[in-house]
Amino acid sequence: MRAPFTSIDGFVEALKATPEADAAAREEAEARNMQLTKPPAALGRLEELAIWYAAWRGNARPQISAPQVIVFAGNHGVTAKGVSAFPAEVTEQMVLNFQHGGAAINQLSQAAGAKLDVIALSLETPTADFTEGPAMTEAELVEALRAGWEAVDPQADVLVTGEMGIGNTTSAAALGAANFGGAPEDWTGRGTGVDDAGLARKTEVVAAGLDRHAGAKGLEALRCLGGRELAGMAGAIAAARAHRIPVILDGFICSAAAACLDVEVPGALDHAVAGHLSAEGAHARMLDAMGKVPLLSLGLRLGEGSGAALAINILKSAVACHSGMATFAEAGVSDG
Amino acid sequence: MRAPFTSIDGFVEALKATPEADAAAREEAEARNMQLTKPPAALGRLEELAIWYAAWRGNARPQISAPQVIVFAGNHGVTAKGVSAFPAEVTEQMVLNFQHGGAAINQLSQAAGAKLDVIALSLETPTADFTEGPAMTEAELVEALRAGWEAVDPQADVLVTGEMGIGNTTSAAALGAANFGGAPEDWTGRGTGVDDAGLARKTEVVAAGLDRHAGAKGLEALRCLGGRELAGMAGAIAAARAHRIPVILDGFICSAAAACLDVEVPGALDHAVAGHLSAEGAHARMLDAMGKVPLLSLGLRLGEGSGAALAINILKSAVACHSGMATFAEAGVSDG
Repeated sequence: MRAPFTSIDGFVEALKATPEADAAAREEAEARNMQLTKPPAALGRLEELAIWYAAWRGNARPQISAPQVIVFAGNHGVTAKGVSAFPAEVTEQMVLNFQHGGAAINQLSQAAGAKLDVIALSLETPTADFTEGPAMTEAELVEALRAGWEAVDPQADVLVTGEMGIGNTTSAAALGAANFGGAPEDWTGRGTGVDDAGLARKTEVVAAGLDRHAGAKGLEALRCLGGRELAGMAGAIAAARAHRIPVILDGFICSAAAACLDVEVPGALDHAVAGHLSAEGAHARMLDAMGKVPLLSLGLRLGEGSGAALAINILKSAVACHSGMATFAEAGVSDG
Repeated sequence: MRAPFTSIDGFVEALKATPEADAAAREEAEARNMQLTKPPAALGRLEELAIWYAAWRGNARPQISAPQVIVFAGNHGVTAKGVSAFPAEVTEQMVLNFQHGGAAINQLSQAAGAKLDVIALSLETPTADFTEGPAMTEAELVEALRAGWEAVDPQADVLVTGEMGIGNTTSAAALGAANFGGAPEDWTGRGTGVDDAGLARKTEVVAAGLDRHAGAKGLEALRCLGGRELAGMAGAIAAARAHRIPVILDGFICSAAAACLDVEVPGALDHAVAGHLSAEGAHARMLDAMGKVPLLSLGLRLGEGSGAALAINILKSAVACHSGMATFAEAGVSDG
């Protein structure tokens, strides 16, 4: 679907115009939940998940049959500073791997019954090194936001956004500090596995980026410190809300992109849950700052949307229980 | 498959005769894991799960296509002491609900692509009140162990055992204390939701059972303090190992039954992982005592095998990544 904006301000207006959850559907789903054949609250977080999902779909007894996973890829000028354990060519090599079905996200999408789309964003043109200037021009940011918005299938009923971009935990760390405060070392981790010297370099690069773009927050932080694949995710997450499609957030990088929306327009992520807690150390800090509690905590730190894709089946199971179970009256079970 | 024992001693011999994990398959799976297109360890616990699964299946590149969920039901004489928030008739009502597809476990099994079998064990004859004598005779225990053993489909490739039995968190609490020590109040929780007075009564009943059956551990504890559905689960978990079928343990009651095997024959649960951490408070203590780290922690406290069934898709996803991903060489990706 054509993105309804051609400027950053236009994007913010479009985001603000997205719907809220449906209070009537929520109330009806809560009432249904109390009648299902189980002790009150015995399905724990699955109950709250199903009710949240019902509210966003505007349907007290919803189904999930069309999850979409979109992996955005982008290249980062800041890799020239030696911030990653892998060379920048790996971004494009992994895009080919996604297209040929060989990556983790291919398997995880299939296991979740999800359609997987891969969107490579101008890989031949890395963003600018953010220690020297803004990573993107306004036009470049808008282009990536639009690509993200337009990648969302309006018929999807759950969205996961993932990413591939050598160097992008450096961007994510800088965005964490820009949006939520704290020192560069609070937000900088080993990413795909840099050694101690690499971690020290990476922390200096994050500090230099924060110095150069002091005060940037929200979408301006995304433009100055982010990357095309982060902007793609932000655009897609906003579009999902426009279509009433609940979102499962992935790990550190996805959360960093999403946080830019929430800082720009508080509440912008009410249609999103955190799929998992990444092993990238600062992810816990970021989720805390965003007020999100992860569904899974299995030590993943891969990106690609992997942790969120793994959580799709949790959400599906929650919704299947909510919509498919019998009530006490239907089943002739004494309700205690 | 016909159970190869007709006595408790025969069961213990059969359990001791079950195979170990296949060291060659484990080594081959570990080597494969290092070649997959991801940074080392980036799939976190999914990697260790897949390798464990491969070792138990004796196949370095396994698939999961036939999970089985078995729900055992039994009635407990100890319900006469007022230990549950629900009347004892609910056990049978819920069995009908399982058979008609209306319960949470029906939805969760379907979402996991699992076959669901429901085995009602002499519901018309509750076990004896364990505060007055052993819950079961030796013959009754053997009958339930055999029913559990024989319920396992040798063609299944993952097993989940669940239960339904009003009063059975009382049995599970007593088994926790009998097998692992500690005070009755350390192990006794609210189950399906007893109030403060109910909890006090329940704790007294657990204490009385422990006094009467002092020193009982392992299978003798299962006989004196357990129930038919707990014994059914224990029999099925042992049979799974005989067939090299990895097991996902459910919550407090399933873990209590499984713990009897582990106390009787140390290492008997090496083919089992903990599917989830129940909201029933003492489950964390029990898993600690068993050396198991749960895959999920979503506040469930329903039983029926629900938390373990929810974890089937996690294991499936782990195995799908392990067996389906491309290697660096296959994908032409630089490995850093």
